[in-house]
Amino acid sequence: MRGKSFEVTPYEVKGEVDYGKLIKKFGVSKLNDKLLRRIERHTDDLHLFLRRKVFFAHRDLNWILDEYEKGNKFFLYTGRASTKGSKVHLGHLMPWIMCKWLQDKFGAEVWFQFPDEEKFLYKNEVTLEDTKKATYEDMLDVIALGFDSKKTHSLVDTKHAGLMFPQAIKVAKKITFSTIKSSFGFNDTNNIGSIFYTAMQAVPAFLPSVLKKKKIPCLIPLGIDQDTHFRISRDVLPKIGYYKPAILHSVFLPPLTGVGGKMSSSDDSKAILTTDSPAEVRKKINKYAFSGGQHSVEEHRKKGGNPDVDVSFQYLKMFFEPDDEKLKKIYNDYKSGKMLTSELKNILIEKINVFLNQHQKKRKLAEKRIDEFLYK
Amino acid sequence: MRGKSFEVTPYEVKGEVDYGKLIKKFGVSKLNDKLLRRIERHTDDLHLFLRRKVFFAHRDLNWILDEYEKGNKFFLYTGRASTKGSKVHLGHLMPWIMCKWLQDKFGAEVWFQFPDEEKFLYKNEVTLEDTKKATYEDMLDVIALGFDSKKTHSLVDTKHAGLMFPQAIKVAKKITFSTIKSSFGFNDTNNIGSIFYTAMQAVPAFLPSVLKKKKIPCLIPLGIDQDTHFRISRDVLPKIGYYKPAILHSVFLPPLTGVGGKMSSSDDSKAILTTDSPAEVRKKINKYAFSGGQHSVEEHRKKGGNPDVDVSFQYLKMFFEPDDEKLKKIYNDYKSGKMLTSELKNILIEKINVFLNQHQKKRKLAEKRIDEFLYK
Repeated sequence: MRGKSFEVTPYEVKGEVDYGKLIKKFGVSKLNDKLLRRIERHTDDLHLFLRRKVFFAHRDLNWILDEYEKGNKFFLYTGRASTKGSKVHLGHLMPWIMCKWLQDKFGAEVWFQFPDEEKFLYKNEVTLEDTKKATYEDMLDVIALGFDSKKTHSLVDTKHAGLMFPQAIKVAKKITFSTIKSSFGFNDTNNIGSIFYTAMQAVPAFLPSVLKKKKIPCLIPLGIDQDTHFRISRDVLPKIGYYKPAILHSVFLPPLTGVGGKMSSSDDSKAILTTDSPAEVRKKINKYAFSGGQHSVEEHRKKGGNPDVDVSFQYLKMFFEPDDEKLKKIYNDYKSGKMLTSELKNILIEKINVFLNQHQKKRKLAEKRIDEFLYK
Repeated sequence: MRGKSFEVTPYEVKGEVDYGKLIKKFGVSKLNDKLLRRIERHTDDLHLFLRRKVFFAHRDLNWILDEYEKGNKFFLYTGRASTKGSKVHLGHLMPWIMCKWLQDKFGAEVWFQFPDEEKFLYKNEVTLEDTKKATYEDMLDVIALGFDSKKTHSLVDTKHAGLMFPQAIKVAKKITFSTIKSSFGFNDTNNIGSIFYTAMQAVPAFLPSVLKKKKIPCLIPLGIDQDTHFRISRDVLPKIGYYKPAILHSVFLPPLTGVGGKMSSSDDSKAILTTDSPAEVRKKINKYAFSGGQHSVEEHRKKGGNPDVDVSFQYLKMFFEPDDEKLKKIYNDYKSGKMLTSELKNILIEKINVFLNQHQKKRKLAEKRIDEFLYK
């Protein structure tokens, strides 16, 4: 498998990602056990995302903890670039759930960016009305995750441009088009809005420092494909008087259809959406979830399944089964052939539907809470 | 003289400009007598800037009058990119005085842009604090010209970014970096803020249409060197549902030192600033104003002077002597040798000082009126 090619950019994830290689290529650090123990000293336990290395790499996380231990609390920055026809799926939730857990454990503020101009600028067919509608829907998902409204501030780029643009130009002055070309693969046919955009994306990483008139450390949990944007921020922010943001990188939740690439909501067969009904979840998992099982029950009982390539097992491991003992038993039972693919899928379906049932109730309640979360 | 080379870009004016050639090169239309008569039907008289072809070319001015005659009033758009070490000089006032006159005669709204990010983005050494301070000073000059505060709206880019940025991205989406390269001579080393900037500059040309939810014609009086920015606006605005702005182009007020280039306030010897004292004006005119006179009084009496290259005469013609008969007499007297250079300079010094005395009083009063002119 090592020899297979893969590609990870902010715009595309292709092939089966070799995360070991990616760590070297991107020049990030592995989230090792020593660092996990250091986190645990402050949090008592470790979220399964950390325990199981769903978040597997970082930049400057030790520094974030140094500062925290000196009494200089960090804030968290995450976001969502809403667009037409792309609803929130389980993969999107991972950095947000990570933020929520870190908020709870470290009492950290969360700054949530909704760059409603990004997809408008990048995609010909997407209008600002499309991204505004989608932003509203996506905010419901964020709020439903249970963030503390007193410590969570949403920035919607077109709504908060009065605050953000005067900061974005400070960043923009330090970024040449050469940098944009080499970082994002742009050329002269790209529009000047998309060229400027990365400056807007950098703003929440230092805006709290501007507002409080002191340098505050920033930690950004993200899918590793988004690292490029923040490599630029890390380069520029010290030049304008702020800290480099620290980063915590996650792997991609695999698409239903297999372990390559990342979950995408533009293809129904690949993603579980937060708005899916129990029947849709059942149908999608049964129909599409790539199985590590054998072709017949007899063969499966005899040879056993392969949980390491089985998408249902991966979802349990990466997201839905927090109990390490139970997960281990499922692993062994599936590998030995004691547990059939249909049984494994049923466990996952049940878990997802319990989660989505709760999420959708909270999502409904969130409709009345949007304003609470907007920065004022 | 025809053979001499000259260059006119938004960033530099070099050499003795051949305005006839420029009309062809830029593809603009000459402001001919027929069109002047058409304006006069609405205004009863013609400002000396029009009568004497200081504003000498246009784009779509006939269309502006067509719409006006149908009852669809135009608005005016002008601006000033404030920067460190560049104070307002007489040349800057020309498009603004033109706007004030058009406001009075046509009852037009004036939208005045102060893009306080522009020079910050274009010049390494300029800070946002510099441009903000300079913007304040420059607003005093604008207000001092007597605009109607009920019909005049100032936009300061960093203050009004909340309003402007969501419109600028609509423009930006339609402009590629190729266009910026060929229009402004940019390359890959330019920063992404300066690349984006022309989108911000386009906004006031359609913002009133956005706010009033109907298409309103826009007329932009400007020095012809600024035409490039608005060629792009004219190309893009119809693509996003608004009218092309019409343009009224002026020649450049020559620098004190001669008829080539344009007045510049970064060199003391070249410009009369609005804040100059009577003694400074006297000194600058006497010392620097390029003279069309002869080397001795005797020679001047015999051969006469050349008013066509004499800067003092040009300032009287382009700005300070509205009376055509008086101007003609000065021309003839200087040409015949009856009027000496010192006498001609004294006439100009007196005129400038009367103007600046009034202007500086109104400029002082303007300190309390800034808020009245900010768009709210």
